[in-house]
Amino acid sequence: MKWKRSERLVDMTQYLLAHPHTLIPLTHFSSAYDAAKSSISEDLAIVKGTFEEQGTGRLITVPGAAGGVKYIPDAGSKEAHEIIRDFMDALSDPGRLLPGGYLFMTDLLGNPGLMDRIGRLFAARYKDSEIDAIMTVATKGIPIAHAIARHLNVPVVVVRRDSKVTEGSTVSINYVSGSSRRIQTMVLSKRSMQSGQRVLLTDDFMKVGGTMNGMKNLLAEFDCEPAGVAVLVESEDVQEERLVEDYVSLLRLREVNEKERTIELVEGNYFREGGN
Amino acid sequence: MKWKRSERLVDMTQYLLAHPHTLIPLTHFSSAYDAAKSSISEDLAIVKGTFEEQGTGRLITVPGAAGGVKYIPDAGSKEAHEIIRDFMDALSDPGRLLPGGYLFMTDLLGNPGLMDRIGRLFAARYKDSEIDAIMTVATKGIPIAHAIARHLNVPVVVVRRDSKVTEGSTVSINYVSGSSRRIQTMVLSKRSMQSGQRVLLTDDFMKVGGTMNGMKNLLAEFDCEPAGVAVLVESEDVQEERLVEDYVSLLRLREVNEKERTIELVEGNYFREGGN
Repeated sequence: MKWKRSERLVDMTQYLLAHPHTLIPLTHFSSAYDAAKSSISEDLAIVKGTFEEQGTGRLITVPGAAGGVKYIPDAGSKEAHEIIRDFMDALSDPGRLLPGGYLFMTDLLGNPGLMDRIGRLFAARYKDSEIDAIMTVATKGIPIAHAIARHLNVPVVVVRRDSKVTEGSTVSINYVSGSSRRIQTMVLSKRSMQSGQRVLLTDDFMKVGGTMNGMKNLLAEFDCEPAGVAVLVESEDVQEERLVEDYVSLLRLREVNEKERTIELVEGNYFREGGN
Repeated sequence: MKWKRSERLVDMTQYLLAHPHTLIPLTHFSSAYDAAKSSISEDLAIVKGTFEEQGTGRLITVPGAAGGVKYIPDAGSKEAHEIIRDFMDALSDPGRLLPGGYLFMTDLLGNPGLMDRIGRLFAARYKDSEIDAIMTVATKGIPIAHAIARHLNVPVVVVRRDSKVTEGSTVSINYVSGSSRRIQTMVLSKRSMQSGQRVLLTDDFMKVGGTMNGMKNLLAEFDCEPAGVAVLVESEDVQEERLVEDYVSLLRLREVNEKERTIELVEGNYFREGGN
């Protein structure tokens, strides 16, 4: 195939989007398209300009023999507001009210398009945080964790409540759940982590933060450190002091009124906590 | 912003890749780029040609007032062999052997890049099967289910072993697990499915197929039907008749020798069962 510039641009865009946070040597493109490095550089300048104009992300060029180009996904402020607004609209439906004031959210966690957009939002937020892995607790956090991880190009580590033979040897901790004050257990396969990693914690919902705090204790067992806490929805209904101070949320659940069948949601702190 | 063709091609490629199996009216592009429909059609022809040449996927044009363009992700045979080969190499590592002849696979399920490639493979296989949803059992099948679902633009439904308050009212069934012959329970939120849906079942590992069969029974309770069964690894070590006949697997586990510390894997039936 003899490549035209227009075709190179299409294929290059596809390749870059499929390889976020990955250094790609220019020789990869020049040999794939049988083109001079100067042509590839011109192509990349067009991709870079369009990505930046549209808020898709940045292209970072690393000079030198070991250099190349790296695509860093981003989310513009307008897009972020749109995603959060769509998520809020979906979650505000009174049909989601469950006995006890709980909200049914499982279908939204099962919506891969929504999860992908939310994943990019958090990946944009933590793009410069040198994240080595994303950690969550089974089951509901898994789609969010994977969506963030794909855009940051890092592995997902899933903490379980029980130990399974297919996990090999494990480390387990006990912790006090924030709201119910019960002793709970967390189990993580020993092979899941290496010491010294910086880990982003994520989950669908956070009240007092007991689960997040449990994960932090588990990280300490592996000589790893938390690099951030990302939650879809935080609850405002926290009687006691929150166990986790430094977190990023998309939505804040103000109030659920079972009798009136109303759900009051507001934007979380995504836009507040410094920049983006 | 005044758009040049080269910039339109970059942004259009990005948009199409982010919206698989979605009909996009041409007016979306002509108004986004302030360009004539004839220019947009020429752009799309370039994207289409490049996608098809590279095996990225097809662009289907639907004519008429309600028409538009639809991107259908695909995977070329060469790429499919590469992905399966990479997966096999990773899984053949004797360091994965666990007591009892089990294989540690959790880190591979936590690799978002690998899951994305595998998801595209299955999405390509089932691209014409009119899938309405992907179903899996918590916990390990979730990353695969989401990866396939994203490329097919359908929701994920997660069956649980236990009932949780945040699931609302549920339907539960008992079934006999294939290998251990124990009675097990599956629970699914009533809100998760509508009747009449065609559902692709997926999981990481299949031996006799008891779990898959359980999911089929659950589908019947919802008046839904199975549209296929996709597994990463099938076991050859099946003493009794397999409960599921019609499935697609990437790898087949021939033998695990704990003493010699060897793992024998071969290609699954992905390439065998008709086409692709």
